[in-house]
Amino acid sequence: MNTRISSLISLLPENADAAVIISNENRRYFTDFVSSLGYLIATREKAYLLVDSRYEEAAGKQAKNCTVVPFRKLGDSFGDIIERHKIKTVLLEGSAFTLNDAAGIDKILSAHGAASVKTKALDDIICRLRIIKTADETEKMMKAQHITETALKAVLRNIKEGMTEKDIALDLEFIMRKSGAESVSFDLIALAGENTSMPHGVPSQRRIKRGDLLLFDIGATVDGYHSDMTRTYAFGFAGDKVKRVYDTVLHAQLAALAAVHSGAKCSDIDRAAREYIDNAGYQGLFGHSTGHGVGLEIHESPSVSPNNDFVLQSGMVITVEPGIYIPGEFGIRIEDMVVVTNDGYINFASLPKELTVI
Amino acid sequence: MNTRISSLISLLPENADAAVIISNENRRYFTDFVSSLGYLIATREKAYLLVDSRYEEAAGKQAKNCTVVPFRKLGDSFGDIIERHKIKTVLLEGSAFTLNDAAGIDKILSAHGAASVKTKALDDIICRLRIIKTADETEKMMKAQHITETALKAVLRNIKEGMTEKDIALDLEFIMRKSGAESVSFDLIALAGENTSMPHGVPSQRRIKRGDLLLFDIGATVDGYHSDMTRTYAFGFAGDKVKRVYDTVLHAQLAALAAVHSGAKCSDIDRAAREYIDNAGYQGLFGHSTGHGVGLEIHESPSVSPNNDFVLQSGMVITVEPGIYIPGEFGIRIEDMVVVTNDGYINFASLPKELTVI
Repeated sequence: MNTRISSLISLLPENADAAVIISNENRRYFTDFVSSLGYLIATREKAYLLVDSRYEEAAGKQAKNCTVVPFRKLGDSFGDIIERHKIKTVLLEGSAFTLNDAAGIDKILSAHGAASVKTKALDDIICRLRIIKTADETEKMMKAQHITETALKAVLRNIKEGMTEKDIALDLEFIMRKSGAESVSFDLIALAGENTSMPHGVPSQRRIKRGDLLLFDIGATVDGYHSDMTRTYAFGFAGDKVKRVYDTVLHAQLAALAAVHSGAKCSDIDRAAREYIDNAGYQGLFGHSTGHGVGLEIHESPSVSPNNDFVLQSGMVITVEPGIYIPGEFGIRIEDMVVVTNDGYINFASLPKELTVI
Repeated sequence: MNTRISSLISLLPENADAAVIISNENRRYFTDFVSSLGYLIATREKAYLLVDSRYEEAAGKQAKNCTVVPFRKLGDSFGDIIERHKIKTVLLEGSAFTLNDAAGIDKILSAHGAASVKTKALDDIICRLRIIKTADETEKMMKAQHITETALKAVLRNIKEGMTEKDIALDLEFIMRKSGAESVSFDLIALAGENTSMPHGVPSQRRIKRGDLLLFDIGATVDGYHSDMTRTYAFGFAGDKVKRVYDTVLHAQLAALAAVHSGAKCSDIDRAAREYIDNAGYQGLFGHSTGHGVGLEIHESPSVSPNNDFVLQSGMVITVEPGIYIPGEFGIRIEDMVVVTNDGYINFASLPKELTVI
C-alpha cells in the first residue's frame, strides 16, 4: 500500500531504523488524526501512534496507516517498540523536538541500547513529501479560500468610516469561523492609511477615514489547510499617486504569475515582479520576498525569493504577493495563492484585482 | 538595579557565562517587549536583545533593561557579544530551543571558541522567578478575569435553546476580544449535556436543550497574562442527581480552597478536594489534577496534583478546579483562580458558585 508513511519510510537513510514525529501538523499529515500531543513512531516494518488516555478512543477510530498505542509511561510503550523492531538508530524531527523533549527521548533510547540522530534529515524528507499537494489537499485549500473571500465581501459591504482596524479584523475572523473555518490562518491583518506602509503591521485602534487605503492580508484554515490572500482597496476615493502605484503592483503581480509553471525557478518568479517594480521607478520599496509555499502551515517550502533557484513542480502551492511600501504614506500589496501546473497555474483566488473604490 | 534580568544573572550557575532566551513569553517577561522572534542574551555584565529589522524601532522604544541590537546575520551580532564578554559557556532555554535552533546556535558558538549547555537548568531558574507574581502581574490577571466574567454574563443573558456549543464558544471569544482582551487564554470550552462528561471536550455542533448542563471553561489574556475559570450551569431545570453531584463538587472545591495558604503543600490541596469527592461516593470520577499555576502561560508551575509536595508561597497563582465526570451522562467542574497569601488566598473570581438554573 502506497501511503504517506510508506513513502516516508522508503526515503529514510540506510542507517536509520525509525523516525519519531511529534509536530501536530506532521502527525496529522501522516495519520489524518488531529491531536495536541502524541508520538508517531515509523519503523521500517510498521508505524505506531502513541497517545495518552484522553485520545485513545478517538485515535482508534480516526488514525490511519498506524497502530494506535495508548501509553501511561512513554518509556514503557516506546521501549517495547524499540525491542520488538530491534531499533538502534532513530531520526528525530529536529524542527519540533525541543532540547528538553529530546533529552527525554534519549533517556528512553539509551535504556534500550539505541540512540538518536539530531539533524535536519527527517525535516527535509517530510518537506519533500508535503511540498507536492494532492487533489484532496488542494480542495481543502479551495474551501478555505472560498470562506476567506465570502467573509471579505461581507465585511466590505458593511464597512463604515470610523471603524477601527481591530474591529474590522475581528469581524472578518468572526465571520470566517461562523462559516466553517477551523481557525484563521494567522492573526488577520487589516490596515488603514499610513499603516498600510508597514508590511508587518498589526491592526490597531486607528479609525478608517475617507481617502485611506485599506489593506487586508487574510486567510482561513479548513481541515488544517491554509489559504492566504491580500487585497488593497481605496476608501472613498483614490488619488493619482495611489492609482499609479496600484497599477504598478498589479502589473508586477501579473508578470510574476505569468512566470509560474512547472520547471520555473522560484527566483525567476521573484525577478519578474521585482524588475517590473524597479523599472517603474520604485526601487527599494519592495522589501520582502515575492511569495512562499502554503499547506498545513501558512509558511512552508518553497520560498519565492531572489536567491532561491529551487525548481517548481506541478502540485506545489505558492503565493505571489509583490508590494510597494512608501514610508509614512501608504503601501499596496496584491496576493493570490496558486497551485502550479505544467502549463502555468490554477488561481485559488477569484476576487477582482482592479483598483476598487469602496 | 534589581531587575528581573539581574535576578536571572545572579542565579546562573558558576560555570555559565551567559544565557540565551528565545521563547516569546520569557523574552516578554524579562524585557517587557512583545515580538514573535528575537534572542535575549544575558551575560554577567549586561543583557542584549537581538531583533531583526522589522522590530528595530519598536524594540528601541519599548524593551527594558537590555541593549537592543538589530541583526542582519545572527552569527555576526552574537559573535561580537561572545568576543566582547569572553563567553565560553552558554545556557540555552531547553524548553524553547528546537534541535534545529540549537544546531544553529552551536555553530555560532563553536566559531568563537564557546559551547552550549543543554540542560533544564535555565528553565528551572526562570520558573523560580516567574512563579512569584508581583502586584503588577496580579493586576493584569484581575483585568483578564474581569473581561472573562463580563463576557460570560453577557452570553448567559442571551443563551437560547438550539444554539450550538461552537456558537456559544465563538460568541464568548468575540465579546472578550471586543472588550479589550489581547486574546483568549486557550481554545474556549463550552460544552452541553453528555459532552460535559469529557474533561477535555471540544465545542461541537451539538445544540443545547432544556435539562442540559452547560460547562464553560474560559479565560482571557491581558498584556500576556492569563485568566482561567470554570462554571457549570443547569439549562431549564436541574434533576436530583445533578443537584447532588453539584453540591459535592462545590464542597470539594471549597475544601480545597480552605487548604490554600503560604506554607501548604500542593498535594494537601489536591487531597482536600479528592477526599471529599471520594468520601461522597464518587471514587474514580475525578480523573485530573486539582489545579495548576497560571501566569504568562495558561499552564505553569506549580502543579496542584496528588504527588507534588511543592510548598506554596505568597504571590503564587494557582487554579482550584475539582470535577466529577459521569461517563455518558454529565460532568460538573468548578474552577477559581487564586493568588496565595500568608493567611489564605485572594480569589480572582467573583461569579457566584451556587447551582444556578438559567
